[in-house]
Amino acid sequence: MSDEKLNIAIVGSSGYTGGELMRILLNHSKVVVTAITSEKSAGKPITSIFPHLAGLTSLVCEPLDPAAVAKKADFIFLALPHVTAQEAAFHFHKLGKKVVDLSADYRLSDPATYETWYEHAHQYPQLLKDAVYGLPELHREKIRNASLIANPGCYPTGAILGLAPLIQTDAVDLGSIIIDSKSGVSGAGRSPSLAHHYPEVNEGLMAYKIGTHRHTPEIEQELSALAGKQITLSFTPHLVPMNRGILTTIYAEPLSPTVTAQIHALFHEFYKEAPFVRLLPIGQFPNVRNVRGSNFCDIGVYADPRTGRAVIVTAIDNLVKGASGQAIQNMNLMMGFNEAEGLRCAGIFP
Amino acid sequence: MSDEKLNIAIVGSSGYTGGELMRILLNHSKVVVTAITSEKSAGKPITSIFPHLAGLTSLVCEPLDPAAVAKKADFIFLALPHVTAQEAAFHFHKLGKKVVDLSADYRLSDPATYETWYEHAHQYPQLLKDAVYGLPELHREKIRNASLIANPGCYPTGAILGLAPLIQTDAVDLGSIIIDSKSGVSGAGRSPSLAHHYPEVNEGLMAYKIGTHRHTPEIEQELSALAGKQITLSFTPHLVPMNRGILTTIYAEPLSPTVTAQIHALFHEFYKEAPFVRLLPIGQFPNVRNVRGSNFCDIGVYADPRTGRAVIVTAIDNLVKGASGQAIQNMNLMMGFNEAEGLRCAGIFP
Amino acid sequence: MSDEKLNIAIVGSSGYTGGELMRILLNHSKVVVTAITSEKSAGKPITSIFPHLAGLTSLVCEPLDPAAVAKKADFIFLALPHVTAQEAAFHFHKLGKKVVDLSADYRLSDPATYETWYEHAHQYPQLLKDAVYGLPELHREKIRNASLIANPGCYPTGAILGLAPLIQTDAVDLGSIIIDSKSGVSGAGRSPSLAHHYPEVNEGLMAYKIGTHRHTPEIEQELSALAGKQITLSFTPHLVPMNRGILTTIYAEPLSPTVTAQIHALFHEFYKEAPFVRLLPIGQFPNVRNVRGSNFCDIGVYADPRTGRAVIVTAIDNLVKGASGQAIQNMNLMMGFNEAEGLRCAGIFP
Amino acid sequence: MSDEKLNIAIVGSSGYTGGELMRILLNHSKVVVTAITSEKSAGKPITSIFPHLAGLTSLVCEPLDPAAVAKKADFIFLALPHVTAQEAAFHFHKLGKKVVDLSADYRLSDPATYETWYEHAHQYPQLLKDAVYGLPELHREKIRNASLIANPGCYPTGAILGLAPLIQTDAVDLGSIIIDSKSGVSGAGRSPSLAHHYPEVNEGLMAYKIGTHRHTPEIEQELSALAGKQITLSFTPHLVPMNRGILTTIYAEPLSPTVTAQIHALFHEFYKEAPFVRLLPIGQFPNVRNVRGSNFCDIGVYADPRTGRAVIVTAIDNLVKGASGQAIQNMNLMMGFNEAEGLRCAGIFP
Repeated sequence: MSDEKLNIAIVGSSGYTGGELMRILLNHSKVVVTAITSEKSAGKPITSIFPHLAGLTSLVCEPLDPAAVAKKADFIFLALPHVTAQEAAFHFHKLGKKVVDLSADYRLSDPATYETWYEHAHQYPQLLKDAVYGLPELHREKIRNASLIANPGCYPTGAILGLAPLIQTDAVDLGSIIIDSKSGVSGAGRSPSLAHHYPEVNEGLMAYKIGTHRHTPEIEQELSALAGKQITLSFTPHLVPMNRGILTTIYAEPLSPTVTAQIHALFHEFYKEAPFVRLLPIGQFPNVRNVRGSNFCDIGVYADPRTGRAVIVTAIDNLVKGASGQAIQNMNLMMGFNEAEGLRCAGIFP
Repeated sequence: MSDEKLNIAIVGSSGYTGGELMRILLNHSKVVVTAITSEKSAGKPITSIFPHLAGLTSLVCEPLDPAAVAKKADFIFLALPHVTAQEAAFHFHKLGKKVVDLSADYRLSDPATYETWYEHAHQYPQLLKDAVYGLPELHREKIRNASLIANPGCYPTGAILGLAPLIQTDAVDLGSIIIDSKSGVSGAGRSPSLAHHYPEVNEGLMAYKIGTHRHTPEIEQELSALAGKQITLSFTPHLVPMNRGILTTIYAEPLSPTVTAQIHALFHEFYKEAPFVRLLPIGQFPNVRNVRGSNFCDIGVYADPRTGRAVIVTAIDNLVKGASGQAIQNMNLMMGFNEAEGLRCAGIFP
Repeated sequence: MSDEKLNIAIVGSSGYTGGELMRILLNHSKVVVTAITSEKSAGKPITSIFPHLAGLTSLVCEPLDPAAVAKKADFIFLALPHVTAQEAAFHFHKLGKKVVDLSADYRLSDPATYETWYEHAHQYPQLLKDAVYGLPELHREKIRNASLIANPGCYPTGAILGLAPLIQTDAVDLGSIIIDSKSGVSGAGRSPSLAHHYPEVNEGLMAYKIGTHRHTPEIEQELSALAGKQITLSFTPHLVPMNRGILTTIYAEPLSPTVTAQIHALFHEFYKEAPFVRLLPIGQFPNVRNVRGSNFCDIGVYADPRTGRAVIVTAIDNLVKGASGQAIQNMNLMMGFNEAEGLRCAGIFP
Repeated sequence: MSDEKLNIAIVGSSGYTGGELMRILLNHSKVVVTAITSEKSAGKPITSIFPHLAGLTSLVCEPLDPAAVAKKADFIFLALPHVTAQEAAFHFHKLGKKVVDLSADYRLSDPATYETWYEHAHQYPQLLKDAVYGLPELHREKIRNASLIANPGCYPTGAILGLAPLIQTDAVDLGSIIIDSKSGVSGAGRSPSLAHHYPEVNEGLMAYKIGTHRHTPEIEQELSALAGKQITLSFTPHLVPMNRGILTTIYAEPLSPTVTAQIHALFHEFYKEAPFVRLLPIGQFPNVRNVRGSNFCDIGVYADPRTGRAVIVTAIDNLVKGASGQAIQNMNLMMGFNEAEGLRCAGIFP
């Protein structure tokens, strides 16, 4: 059955992004998942960890042994915690496998920046040079030729997509950027903690890690590259009582007086070939409910005539366009499949 | 593009079941939706009503004119309110179209029962005789040959699937049946009301229409037919603060002392050919989160050694297996497609 | 400041019931909390554990040393895990203090039953004999004279209050009782676990511990005592995505044909002196949202003319009438205060 | 019973702010509610509209007849929609009653600004001059002597309290202010609409009325007055799936390099006498869950060393400090009661 399909391994399959990779890949016509690993669930069927997959797969988790996994699969998704993923990526890369790493380990091109923000040294700076930041809307061609993809973080995906058209066209003051993001709780992962215990989160709302969240340098790196000069920006994440979704509200000051139609046109031009960006008509703004379970990024734009500021709002599903869906979009590009293969689905509403 | 595909019309497309039909049919390989109707949204694109479908369809709502719709489509889903659907079904049937009616109008085979519970006379008792109750797990063969399907109610789907194996095998006292159901809010439809206003529902929980809900005679009709004698049972619906899902907890007294393994075996036998029933291993019970967005019905069974009672728990997504997914399952059977075509997807978790 | 007020200690103050005791007692005119204990938070202000109390108290947690605590307080609330509470109750009792134990340790009068269901031997069977089950609606006079109160469990409170009037008047078949309960997540306590991790619970719904929940023998003990004979009943708890509240739906078969007005009259008579039971008018049923944060138990009753069954629905806040509020109601009775002192507040809606 | 207590009327009692006034006033030692009005519920007990108040009040709604109400009460809370409140305030004022108006009608001192944003002319510009903006932390002394209070909007309360210390001390660039607010759904009122229908809101998140929300001129008016010059700022409201709470994240650029401790000191000084502002320790940020049901405004401050920006976060309960609680705080000041009378309660957590 897998003769003509690409054989896939999901390394680190017990977290939410692992489950989401399985869910989407089960309906992908060009691939078959042939191996899944989980240290703590080795020997157990994946359906014991994710009962929603029952009846659709009989895969059993195995411990992470790169050589053994490499025999079963030619394409590797790493859904491991950061730091851990460094070495796994190295091994699979050395074994000649194409790799999409969903962790943060290969996203920051400067190892010193990585060490500053993640408090661990990077063990594979050589490999880091080969890694491509996997945001297809910015790096589609480089992704096609890459063998190691650093899949973007959830917040950076929503933030960068909302700013790239403005930065690339020199439309805004680079010192004026403020990104106020609001995320559902699945973004915090599947490990239980008091901070994400149901009664602590439900009917609650807070900002956290103000100015210090690890996704900040990732956003700055990508936007600085687009701008051709260093950007320092404000990023504030918030935790919202919902399972999925990130809404990002972005403020920036145009360098010259601007009306909404101009901003809209910039975005339209920038994303005209992007199959997963839906630019909303002028006057409409996105809602995370409309992207739930889908790979879309919805964007609404506004130029405020009172203050002169541009306000951009983006909505993604943090587990799909913000993680596993984007990883599959990257795989599609790397393998020469249609970019939207397996991802051309509506989200679930309500 | 629609040359070789079945042309479909969705009549009444602005409610949640209409939106869900669209979402699922967009990924169905054998059909194409060619017409959608909505009185209040005539002239508007469906994506203005359901922005989560943006980028996937450009269909525009039209008013309900059976002759005009019949020219565009050969298979009709009726997602209209009850009473209204009576006439629409009649017209499309007369025009030679196959119809799946998602309303309650053709579910109760006795027009007098319909009139008692729905407080309207049935205008088409002749057509009522031709209608087949569209629960594939009970009536698969009749559905294949039907031209008018009465698609089951959401509560009845979860209740009947949890009782059929016990009733068919004469395993329980027919006078002992109690069905305690808990539904998410989308089951109440998309029309705003104080009872379903967000702050009234969230962090709330209540029983409603105790002993008087209109789905009661529907459950009794199907189970009585299986039993070969009239069953009167207790049914209590509850409203739970979540979007989707019905969990049904069923109590019945076995006619002879029974252990869980016996009940489990009965269910296994009964559902061994059913692609959308997932009987859980002994000791496990379903959670609506595992069927969210999918057409599965998960079932767990238990024989309580202390009380002697059987306790069965079923979980469905009220909009999928409890409405639109089941409607498409019925279409698949009526058209000779694979029963699971377009429906073989995992739900979305979390 | 505490000269004329009763000095109170809360032993085990870091869980939800501990926090709720603090919240309510801060507005109780006759008492002052003078000591709070928490092993893991010893040395920290209570407001670091419960920031909602900031500005209202400066109490600091201390480790549990019964002799030290006894010097500071004359009345003790134990909000410890079961098993742990056994010994604490013993020590404070020996030191001459009045104690309300919110754990399960002194609820089951038969130590063998305790050992069967809680899998630990009871170390203080003599003291167990002195403990009074603290459900004021059943045992008001005994509570007034008690020195050790076993505060009822959350599920038993809602279940017993919904059945006591029927049992005491021999109105129903004792073998027919089914209790289907639905609880918010705070009932599971404040310790993080995968089962109560936000994305696992939100938009989910399940039954658990069917027929085996530890509150079962507690309900049976109290109802059996009322009946004068042993009752064995079905009890099914469910987990609902909300913070607070238990809705209990009860089914029982009247011994003779009964109409709703008769049942309503029984309940009216039984609870006519109970300040915290609100019997709803015929035709109305309770919603947990109406008791959120309050000590009320709302009750609705129905005699189903179709099946002959009685259906009773009760709603409580599991942390108030189901735990801390009831504990304070018991203290009021034990100390000769007005039964409703500090508890005569509306819940918070919405 | 009301002999020595202040007699209160709540005009417009069927909305959430009306219900919240009742809830809080029931535990206020100095007042008694003697009249409540509701056009659509005239003749019905308030407990039929708000069942959570059952057992605590037997008040019956009456139609709004100012003369009749004025005979029963000496202090009037207006919880009417805007425009409607204009005339009611005028009549009660003319009858010599003290009035707190919870609507927007008397908040904007310039009638032209009112007309621009509310699209109705102001009929009582003379009375408008007498109205005092009821934010005690800014206008405590004027409130004590006022006879008509314009109770602040929910968003403005959270926004102004988070900016006042910075503005008053000339600490920030007045052109740099961005206010990103996130509100629970009760802020939208109790009238059902599709936008606030449960399944549309739950698991959703959106910005709305970007740059055009009516609370914008109210925030600007108060801050401009503090600054002594006109401020134009960005304000973006968001709708969050929770019942209560507003979290406001504020960005502003200090005029000179600033560290967090300096900002913290400014806030400490500004609010040292304010009984309902809780300034959090450096490094902590507020969560709406900690103010739920209470009159507190929690504030956290941060000076970002990377960007130089100040980030302030405030949390209030929109129905309490953002509406009814603040109205009662104003009444306390107007009547010479203790400012915190009836409001010195912890919120409900979880």
